[in-house]
Amino acid sequence: MDPILQGYIDRLNALRFREMYEGDFFLTWEKSSDEIEAVFTVADALRYLREHNISTKVFESGLGISIFRDNSTRTRFSFASACNLLGLAVQDLDEKKSQIAHGETVRETANMVSFMADVIGIRDDMYIGKGNRYMHSVADAVTEGRRDGVLEQKPTLVNLQCDIDHPTQCMADMLHIIHEFGGAENLKGKKLAMTWAYSPSYGKPLSVPQGVIGLMTRFGMDVVLAHPEGYDVMPEVEEVARRNAAASGGSFTKCGSMAEAFRDADIVYPKSWAPFAAMEKRTDLYGAGDFDGIDALEKELLAQNAEHKDWCCTEELMKTTKDGKALYLHCLPADISGVSCADGEVAASVFDRYRAPLYREASFKPYIIAAMIFLAKMKDPAAALAALEARGMKRRFE
Amino acid sequence: MDPILQGYIDRLNALRFREMYEGDFFLTWEKSSDEIEAVFTVADALRYLREHNISTKVFESGLGISIFRDNSTRTRFSFASACNLLGLAVQDLDEKKSQIAHGETVRETANMVSFMADVIGIRDDMYIGKGNRYMHSVADAVTEGRRDGVLEQKPTLVNLQCDIDHPTQCMADMLHIIHEFGGAENLKGKKLAMTWAYSPSYGKPLSVPQGVIGLMTRFGMDVVLAHPEGYDVMPEVEEVARRNAAASGGSFTKCGSMAEAFRDADIVYPKSWAPFAAMEKRTDLYGAGDFDGIDALEKELLAQNAEHKDWCCTEELMKTTKDGKALYLHCLPADISGVSCADGEVAASVFDRYRAPLYREASFKPYIIAAMIFLAKMKDPAAALAALEARGMKRRFE
Amino acid sequence: MDPILQGYIDRLNALRFREMYEGDFFLTWEKSSDEIEAVFTVADALRYLREHNISTKVFESGLGISIFRDNSTRTRFSFASACNLLGLAVQDLDEKKSQIAHGETVRETANMVSFMADVIGIRDDMYIGKGNRYMHSVADAVTEGRRDGVLEQKPTLVNLQCDIDHPTQCMADMLHIIHEFGGAENLKGKKLAMTWAYSPSYGKPLSVPQGVIGLMTRFGMDVVLAHPEGYDVMPEVEEVARRNAAASGGSFTKCGSMAEAFRDADIVYPKSWAPFAAMEKRTDLYGAGDFDGIDALEKELLAQNAEHKDWCCTEELMKTTKDGKALYLHCLPADISGVSCADGEVAASVFDRYRAPLYREASFKPYIIAAMIFLAKMKDPAAALAALEARGMKRRFE
Repeated sequence: MDPILQGYIDRLNALRFREMYEGDFFLTWEKSSDEIEAVFTVADALRYLREHNISTKVFESGLGISIFRDNSTRTRFSFASACNLLGLAVQDLDEKKSQIAHGETVRETANMVSFMADVIGIRDDMYIGKGNRYMHSVADAVTEGRRDGVLEQKPTLVNLQCDIDHPTQCMADMLHIIHEFGGAENLKGKKLAMTWAYSPSYGKPLSVPQGVIGLMTRFGMDVVLAHPEGYDVMPEVEEVARRNAAASGGSFTKCGSMAEAFRDADIVYPKSWAPFAAMEKRTDLYGAGDFDGIDALEKELLAQNAEHKDWCCTEELMKTTKDGKALYLHCLPADISGVSCADGEVAASVFDRYRAPLYREASFKPYIIAAMIFLAKMKDPAAALAALEARGMKRRFE
Repeated sequence: MDPILQGYIDRLNALRFREMYEGDFFLTWEKSSDEIEAVFTVADALRYLREHNISTKVFESGLGISIFRDNSTRTRFSFASACNLLGLAVQDLDEKKSQIAHGETVRETANMVSFMADVIGIRDDMYIGKGNRYMHSVADAVTEGRRDGVLEQKPTLVNLQCDIDHPTQCMADMLHIIHEFGGAENLKGKKLAMTWAYSPSYGKPLSVPQGVIGLMTRFGMDVVLAHPEGYDVMPEVEEVARRNAAASGGSFTKCGSMAEAFRDADIVYPKSWAPFAAMEKRTDLYGAGDFDGIDALEKELLAQNAEHKDWCCTEELMKTTKDGKALYLHCLPADISGVSCADGEVAASVFDRYRAPLYREASFKPYIIAAMIFLAKMKDPAAALAALEARGMKRRFE
Repeated sequence: MDPILQGYIDRLNALRFREMYEGDFFLTWEKSSDEIEAVFTVADALRYLREHNISTKVFESGLGISIFRDNSTRTRFSFASACNLLGLAVQDLDEKKSQIAHGETVRETANMVSFMADVIGIRDDMYIGKGNRYMHSVADAVTEGRRDGVLEQKPTLVNLQCDIDHPTQCMADMLHIIHEFGGAENLKGKKLAMTWAYSPSYGKPLSVPQGVIGLMTRFGMDVVLAHPEGYDVMPEVEEVARRNAAASGGSFTKCGSMAEAFRDADIVYPKSWAPFAAMEKRTDLYGAGDFDGIDALEKELLAQNAEHKDWCCTEELMKTTKDGKALYLHCLPADISGVSCADGEVAASVFDRYRAPLYREASFKPYIIAAMIFLAKMKDPAAALAALEARGMKRRFE
């Protein structure tokens, strides 16, 4: 047995994550610390195997169903890559080409697409109070379908971004941090600044800042959430962050200044998002079909945004971070000043300097998704990893 | 050898279906009873293998081409599932993204997409006299292509719904009936009511009622077709039903009352469809580019439909069926009163009660499609099933 | 070892093509003659294996990314077929469903979609000076991504048609010629006429005529490029053709008459294209957003085209070719007089007579693409072919 792979297996064997088997992945804070660590460990192990040209195909056939209710490149490709890595074929449910418009229920559609499905990945992040609820409806429907003998297996649901959390993104971000700092054990006392940043676009989802404070407070770090007045995130998630920080021996604080958040930070995550209250209002306006109201709201929000153009991750601000070298994070694509817009979230020179680490950050996402599926579908994941190595099938012919 | 699988193999060995090899599947009544039974048997065998985690991949590579000329969720996913089950990758021919608009012929396109294709699945159900004919053009083209050395193999054509029949749907319905009644041998003398039902939408294809009377009259049942005046189906298919009934020792009758059709029925299939004559007229209007005429026709038909809102599968009607417990069938999605529309094909409480069996009914479709492909592509299907078990490759890693 | 396969392997072993490993395929004239021959040889070998039901799957998992910036049927399916033949799953980057509109850079997108990608195939042929350059940007981006540890492998880029060349098409055309003439060694002194032909549509890419004169001048043939005044192709490519002809002992000449080009020709390739100068002008107009200017240009070009309706591949012209039996080529779909348009590139009776060879011509394209991938991804392609035969895995279960 390869000693590095053995290390991953030993780590897994020391963790309790039995309940992930046949489970789903909605929000990181619904998972225990052991479960979170199991995802990271399996992600690293799968990457290790692939990088050593060992096939990690655990499905000879089977489908990964994707439902994207918002445009997506990287999450779409990450999901496709994860499925491919494990042997699943992707079948996208394009709601425009389906009969769903005919008044079909979620319960029905969920079963109809799942006869051969091992996983369903959903992105639904547009409306507050909707996306996560929709995912639960789908998961409940296939759980019933399995119980009623309709489905031969219960596909596992993977949240590819909802209105509350973006677990595959934030766990990829976190695994990147762990690698950059040489292990989760080195994170205690480190300062992470999750800060709002200006963008000329409006209405970016809250799931990334929420996901970040909901996850990264679990590692003993000092997590600061900074934003201009009025750009609050969901209070329930702040509460989660507070509880996490207390339990992990770190802290969770808020402040109204980017400069203060950046000062001595080890890690910075400057990113635009829409105010929670405005997103709630927009959801209500949509519900009421009040499109004039939506237009008015958008104008109001853009004007409000424009008052905060100084919330930009500049070289000056970066200099104030720990040794002037904080790890800069972003879920991408970023609004880069002078590149994709006149004024944006980040200065072009900062972004350029961090380009390679940013892309590496993104490179963890397929493995995180694959690990979530692996843990839900393999009865004994540690044994499965060992068996993959023993099988020794080449990923690419040599 | 597993005794249940051996049972399927023995049954296959007692049937004559040699002509299915390298053949196509257009209409159920073009197939012998042995051939129909072979499809059911292989479908059951493939399902049995998959449910016991034995891979049924008979293709290491190869494509399943799909052409959907109408929106589709469940047939699209059933086809994708069937292909995946056998090892084929699905490649959809999206006519909007292709150069077909440039005046390319069917003959040419059919060959151009088939260089690696083992199967072509087509849904084309919108115009009377068109869909089935189009499928034959495609099958003829690839047959020529094979003969001329253009193609390495002739892909098998599977009708995923045409203007005449919906064989994968009706065979899934039928296999569901067989399972519910504990075997085809228990169906003699059972009463099946294929009845029209009201729907606020207009122009639903006739292929389901036609497919049902064309197939289900082959099992010795008393099949009743009921609809309001003017909602006739294609006379040729009624003729098929009559001949089938005579040959199988059952009956085929027509009536103009849902209540009469339901009385003492063992199985009911209430479903909306458009009048055949109106569909023919619409086809002609399209041909002539008379869009005002089409609008006028639609209004007329909706008004005509609205006179028959009482054709609904209510609890009262269900009580009049055999022991009040007829098996309720639908191809889905159904128009459910008070759920997807004010007045529809079925009462919400009836639909809810039958939800699990309805979804199980749908679950047979992927296996039916896979069986059609298997029988067209395996020289000795019984031996292939035995070899799959002997190979013992796990579908999902354990 | 099968002697025919051994022949292919021996031929490969006599060629130098080491630099293709981990390389890309942009333009045929950037490749040495040995490299071109290696592609033909591997294409033939892969076809031989597949036609003998031996799996050529060299990837257990992995993605083939496709980016089509123009409609496509046959290239799309050829790419999908090639990927499938080698074991890769296709994931299409549909720019409409992605976030690319948000101002994301090519560099970023290229990396984001490539975490599991072994190949990226791109079609981008609409604007002079753009397509090839875009492909290089993508290839440069993933080369950097590989170097920076973002990507586990550098996907190979395959040009599926750019503004300059259409290498997969022209190499398929050429392999067809080689097979029809019984070997490349029989082509010396043969006359090939690449001629413009009339089409009622406007603005067809120049990549086919350019690709043809850039490739087919390498085999000692007398290549004639014929077109009406004003329909010149890119001068740089004519220069390539001249150099090639000189090196191969053939010739490259131009003339302004279809009749002259056809006289005694062994091979004819009559096909419409847009004037290079007009394409450049159109690119500039697009750049300037001058849509009225574009409309005016289109009208002008259609009028100019219409003066040359006599440039049609008629039976009379075909009679003037070598023994009246020149091999007629086309990349398809062709504009056929009286079939897809009133006046077109070719007479219906000529097209019909050559239909089977035309479709065979097209049938080489999936194998050419697969060979390009194989040579870029297999360290020792000859050994890999031998290993595939030794493995003896059936493509289709028997």
